[in-house]
Amino acid sequence: MERIAIIGLGLIGGSIGLAIKQSDVGDVQVAGSARTRGTVQRAKKLGAIDIEAASAAEAVKGARLVIVASPIIAMRAVFEEIAPALAEGAVVTDVASTKGDVSRWAKELLPATAHFVGGHPMAGKETQGIDAADADLFRGKPWVITPSVDASESAVNTVVGLAQLAGAVPMFMDPDEHDSYAAAISHLPLLLSTALFSVAQGSAAWPELAQLASSGFRDTTRLASGSPEMAHDIMISNRDNVLHWLDRFIAELTRYREIVAAGESVAVIEAFTRPQIERENFVVNGPPRRDDREPMEKVSLSEMLLGSKISGFMNKQQEIIKAAEARANGKRP
Amino acid sequence: MERIAIIGLGLIGGSIGLAIKQSDVGDVQVAGSARTRGTVQRAKKLGAIDIEAASAAEAVKGARLVIVASPIIAMRAVFEEIAPALAEGAVVTDVASTKGDVSRWAKELLPATAHFVGGHPMAGKETQGIDAADADLFRGKPWVITPSVDASESAVNTVVGLAQLAGAVPMFMDPDEHDSYAAAISHLPLLLSTALFSVAQGSAAWPELAQLASSGFRDTTRLASGSPEMAHDIMISNRDNVLHWLDRFIAELTRYREIVAAGESVAVIEAFTRPQIERENFVVNGPPRRDDREPMEKVSLSEMLLGSKISGFMNKQQEIIKAAEARANGKRP
Repeated sequence: MERIAIIGLGLIGGSIGLAIKQSDVGDVQVAGSARTRGTVQRAKKLGAIDIEAASAAEAVKGARLVIVASPIIAMRAVFEEIAPALAEGAVVTDVASTKGDVSRWAKELLPATAHFVGGHPMAGKETQGIDAADADLFRGKPWVITPSVDASESAVNTVVGLAQLAGAVPMFMDPDEHDSYAAAISHLPLLLSTALFSVAQGSAAWPELAQLASSGFRDTTRLASGSPEMAHDIMISNRDNVLHWLDRFIAELTRYREIVAAGESVAVIEAFTRPQIERENFVVNGPPRRDDREPMEKVSLSEMLLGSKISGFMNKQQEIIKAAEARANGKRP
Repeated sequence: MERIAIIGLGLIGGSIGLAIKQSDVGDVQVAGSARTRGTVQRAKKLGAIDIEAASAAEAVKGARLVIVASPIIAMRAVFEEIAPALAEGAVVTDVASTKGDVSRWAKELLPATAHFVGGHPMAGKETQGIDAADADLFRGKPWVITPSVDASESAVNTVVGLAQLAGAVPMFMDPDEHDSYAAAISHLPLLLSTALFSVAQGSAAWPELAQLASSGFRDTTRLASGSPEMAHDIMISNRDNVLHWLDRFIAELTRYREIVAAGESVAVIEAFTRPQIERENFVVNGPPRRDDREPMEKVSLSEMLLGSKISGFMNKQQEIIKAAEARANGKRP
């Protein structure tokens, strides 16, 4: 029976476990480890794992696929711990919200006999921890896969299969490119959401403000309920990109401030009309088309685990990475 | 048969019509008018109104309750138009997102024989217009009622009855107090949401960013999809309060920027921990308790329309207004 290991059983690790267990992947055993024994027991009880491992090293023993779902900053230590215990040819992936540092740690610490392919399932919710785990958390959401140029085809396909098994939309990206984009689309919103909640809740009028809070305030501050540890790890490991986008945002907000302060009707309505139209377009039609990013074929994780060779992906992936590198060198987003 | 008039049949006006028509209010006819004849016809077809009125003045003829759901800036002209046509003793309310200007226009323009009691149902959604109308839009949401100190008891109770009929949570507030609080809890989030979408969509990397956009980006930018006309009216009519809170927010965001830039772990985690804990507390336990704002008794709109006297509200309301005025005079939120 094939073995999959999950290191870290919070919202993401737990949800991946549930997604695997509730899928039709077949004869697979999921071993899990976490910082506390209680979490591992709870994951077993909820059906997210089959085997309670006492440590990360124990969990990965004999595993064909290892999913590291620890906090970002902890991943370095996890890689150090599992490196000697990894099976020959094991595929290692992760779920960190930033990919640059993690990819470098993997290259530095994991043995050449293992295959690291980074990943970032872009999904979350208002509640954290194993009890919030949900097999459908990733359904329809992006799952970024950041293979190094020398990653093996079957390793990449294994991680694509995992994303597809969870119902996510796999997409390839260079690790550093991912971090720059994620700073804009994910880490900046996290900062704004937190600062907005903080300024309202920190006000002397908070009891009155809270009475008035409706769905708009709730939606815009939802990200403030995320794990502070995860926010910390993101801000530390993706600091420069976050600051870059934060400064762009502050400049944009200052532009809006000037428009509101001037109170000139045409300028005010124009400032709200373009975003409204463009967001409507985005919601209805989805992201703008990119000719070089086509939808992927469906690949099954079990085929991947069984080592069957599926071609086509690698070529497409190489093209995408080359295009991404050209973009990354040519212009900063 | 009692008559209710709704002037303006967008998302809010249309949803109020549906809520009235789908309630157990009994023998009530709803007359509606809007800027275009097509909207009025559509509202009739959707069951939001019974009578298609050719103008606001025609709609209010013989109506016991008039709900003005036009854009804020248009309300002055609506008041001018309906003033000569209002029935003796008619109760006039509105749904504007800002209450100061509207209350002053009502005082200036509406006849002394009518009773104006301002209102603001704090609900919205991603789509606008009569086709987005929903009888349940207001369910569980705050519906702020801003009576002047000389408002009649039965007029106030009529508007409370309307809010309760729609399933909303009525709460009393001074108009200017409302505008200050709404700037923080509603208009500032609208600005941030719009500026965030604008900076992402305006970037050369938007095609890549959009691919990565997940529920977090979607939630934090939802308000950017609101009506640009409404945003304009809010920014114009509540400019000073919006600027006040925008500056407080920029200061808070700058504080976060410094913490991220310094990259000191303890400070970073602390900056995300307090908002996370406080928002969790807010989501689980609701707003902090205010001793002077108790839940209201259930009052039926039909009783109000039939003129029955219900006591108790006025005294409580007067107390609340006095307390609000004391707060407004004593401290700026």
